[in-house]
Amino acid sequence: MEASRIKQLVALGVVAIVVMVSACVFFFNRNNQVALEGPQGEIAADETNSAAWGQFYPAHWDSYQDNMANTLNPSHFETKPYMQIIYAGTGFAAEFNEPRGHVYSIEDVKSIDPARRKAGASCFTCKSTQAPGMIKEYGDHYYLMSFDEMKDKITEPIGCLDCHDPKTMKLRLTRPALIEALERQGRSIDKLTNQEMRSLVCAQCHVTYYFHPDTKEVTFPWDKGLTAQEILTYYDEHNFSEWVHPVAGTNLVKARHADYETFMGSTHQSAGLACADCHMPYITVGNKKISSHVWQSPLNNIEQSCTACHRNGAEWLKNRVRTIQAQVKQTQDLAGAAVVEAINELKISRETPTVDKTKLQEAMALHREAQWYLDYAMVTNGYGFHNPTATLNNLSIAIDKAHKAIAKAREARR
Amino acid sequence: MEASRIKQLVALGVVAIVVMVSACVFFFNRNNQVALEGPQGEIAADETNSAAWGQFYPAHWDSYQDNMANTLNPSHFETKPYMQIIYAGTGFAAEFNEPRGHVYSIEDVKSIDPARRKAGASCFTCKSTQAPGMIKEYGDHYYLMSFDEMKDKITEPIGCLDCHDPKTMKLRLTRPALIEALERQGRSIDKLTNQEMRSLVCAQCHVTYYFHPDTKEVTFPWDKGLTAQEILTYYDEHNFSEWVHPVAGTNLVKARHADYETFMGSTHQSAGLACADCHMPYITVGNKKISSHVWQSPLNNIEQSCTACHRNGAEWLKNRVRTIQAQVKQTQDLAGAAVVEAINELKISRETPTVDKTKLQEAMALHREAQWYLDYAMVTNGYGFHNPTATLNNLSIAIDKAHKAIAKAREARR
Repeated sequence: MEASRIKQLVALGVVAIVVMVSACVFFFNRNNQVALEGPQGEIAADETNSAAWGQFYPAHWDSYQDNMANTLNPSHFETKPYMQIIYAGTGFAAEFNEPRGHVYSIEDVKSIDPARRKAGASCFTCKSTQAPGMIKEYGDHYYLMSFDEMKDKITEPIGCLDCHDPKTMKLRLTRPALIEALERQGRSIDKLTNQEMRSLVCAQCHVTYYFHPDTKEVTFPWDKGLTAQEILTYYDEHNFSEWVHPVAGTNLVKARHADYETFMGSTHQSAGLACADCHMPYITVGNKKISSHVWQSPLNNIEQSCTACHRNGAEWLKNRVRTIQAQVKQTQDLAGAAVVEAINELKISRETPTVDKTKLQEAMALHREAQWYLDYAMVTNGYGFHNPTATLNNLSIAIDKAHKAIAKAREARR
Repeated sequence: MEASRIKQLVALGVVAIVVMVSACVFFFNRNNQVALEGPQGEIAADETNSAAWGQFYPAHWDSYQDNMANTLNPSHFETKPYMQIIYAGTGFAAEFNEPRGHVYSIEDVKSIDPARRKAGASCFTCKSTQAPGMIKEYGDHYYLMSFDEMKDKITEPIGCLDCHDPKTMKLRLTRPALIEALERQGRSIDKLTNQEMRSLVCAQCHVTYYFHPDTKEVTFPWDKGLTAQEILTYYDEHNFSEWVHPVAGTNLVKARHADYETFMGSTHQSAGLACADCHMPYITVGNKKISSHVWQSPLNNIEQSCTACHRNGAEWLKNRVRTIQAQVKQTQDLAGAAVVEAINELKISRETPTVDKTKLQEAMALHREAQWYLDYAMVTNGYGFHNPTATLNNLSIAIDKAHKAIAKAREARR
């Protein structure tokens, strides 16, 4: 064979190999892309529709959709009838249901009887992926808009955009109230660790907050600290009240589900855990490991959540939680009864023409404290389990303050 | 060599081997005995002197003697001044100190001012290895004897014989009150597991008890259960009171350190732990592993006690315990203040000639309950750590009942 012929064959062989390898790489990559990232293209930077994200993350999307299964939202009043009395003068006294899944947030907020609804557009701040966009669009005016002005613009429930960057999928904060609260604490948003973010994305909404009296902006009362006592001190120093109890005449503050604040300082939190460790445990879908996106009681998927650390068996764990929650419920019921009695005594004293006004004010101040400590424990999800000892401690303060309010209200009319 | 000569040599060889093997076995055994069990002989079946046991178990004896290091027994009144008021009418109001180690039990009980001492020989029941022998010797009369009749006979503090069988070293129960309480529950003493025994030997003394009104016998009020509520129900059904509060006029029951009862139903207990797991952790002495016989707060030897299970580091563990104990202390102080106020109100009502007697009785009944729930939590060692949530639950009941007593006492004189 002549030399040029050999050269030709070698060149042909090299070309063939290059083509074959290139084809392999191309098809491997393409396959991989479809398998790992779903369809081609990318998620829009402001994509509020979680289904659009779901095409790229089908396992997460399936998990998210499992939230639909929780269709129960019984009234809180069934187990805590005293709520109707202590919340008199607010919409919470008329209707206050246990939460369903995140996926129902818009359906549920819109289904509240308009005659009973008190707040405005701000209600949507934690209910929809569209809220940050609306805040951007309307600026400070957003918080001053009415519920009806906003309600037809908002259709998407809580979803992917609330916590994730669409490009990198990294966790990020989208709610101004939390970002501002952290900044006032001197914390740098850019330096938060991933483990901190696994709680803080939840803390965008699972916190107590208030509407700033001037701007109606959602604001976190955290500047003095995150305990029930520190938050009440903040409100007292700001001379802030949310409403006047129509029967007791007391200036009151409404606690919201202070899940994050309560969790801080607990055994689990101080051991380094984040919300997601218990509420979004790792699960396997096919041969993939993902964080569950079914937000629920860890008791519902205890084998994935608690038993990752606790090896005592599911039944034992459930019994521990139930024991503690029963202790909290018993204590909470004592506090509820005492606060109701304080309200009744204040009513009688206010109707007494010869009442000692100074003592009546003191009684109201005690009622304000009692109701705050009760409410802070009561509306936090988990019946105290986010921090059992702090919750029981707060409830014992509520019991003590409520009885002191009762005594002072009686003293005022002697 | 002739056959008989060979036979002789073989026989001699066999004898030599037998002698040498025997010698080896003898010296090996003897060495072993000295090394493992100390001197020859055995511990007498009724050996009340722990030093005599110590010769056989030098490592355990050294550990036991380390109890001498804890020389502090500050007055409870320094941190809980309300104790003096709520215990009025008992010796506890005059003198009530934090416990020192077991080794000081006789020295401490004998040092109590005789003028302030109220109880008799029964005081020694939990203070000395000699108590079971005295109970055997004097029969039922033991409990009726005076402190002075007994005090010179008893010299040995709490020690080995209280919990161990001198022959086998197995754990065993020596106090009649516990054995009888378990028998009334239908439990077979012979069938208790070793892990149960590692708590029950402690429960011979670290429990609440009362002196039976007829026989003065030390008796455990456990027949309805071991919770604070069940024990109070037992006392109520037996119409039992220990003393009448001289200021409030209330028939009261004194709780004793209910360490065992409080521990039952706790997270640690329900996870299968016994008292000894935390309070007598395994330690190494030379090349031997023994249970520590220094009875103390596990925080003092946290590396041996807590960290056997908890891997979060000693400082973290201490912070958790301190956080929980601070919450309990705050709640306890609220209860203490409320009970003191109830006593003051009852005093005023009793001095009011026109008082409503029925309501006064109701107020006293509430004071009895409040003081019980407070006392049960307060005199249990560990500031609630044996069962934080149950303790906080009990203290919240104390706060509630005390305020109800205050209100009822006031109502009685209107």
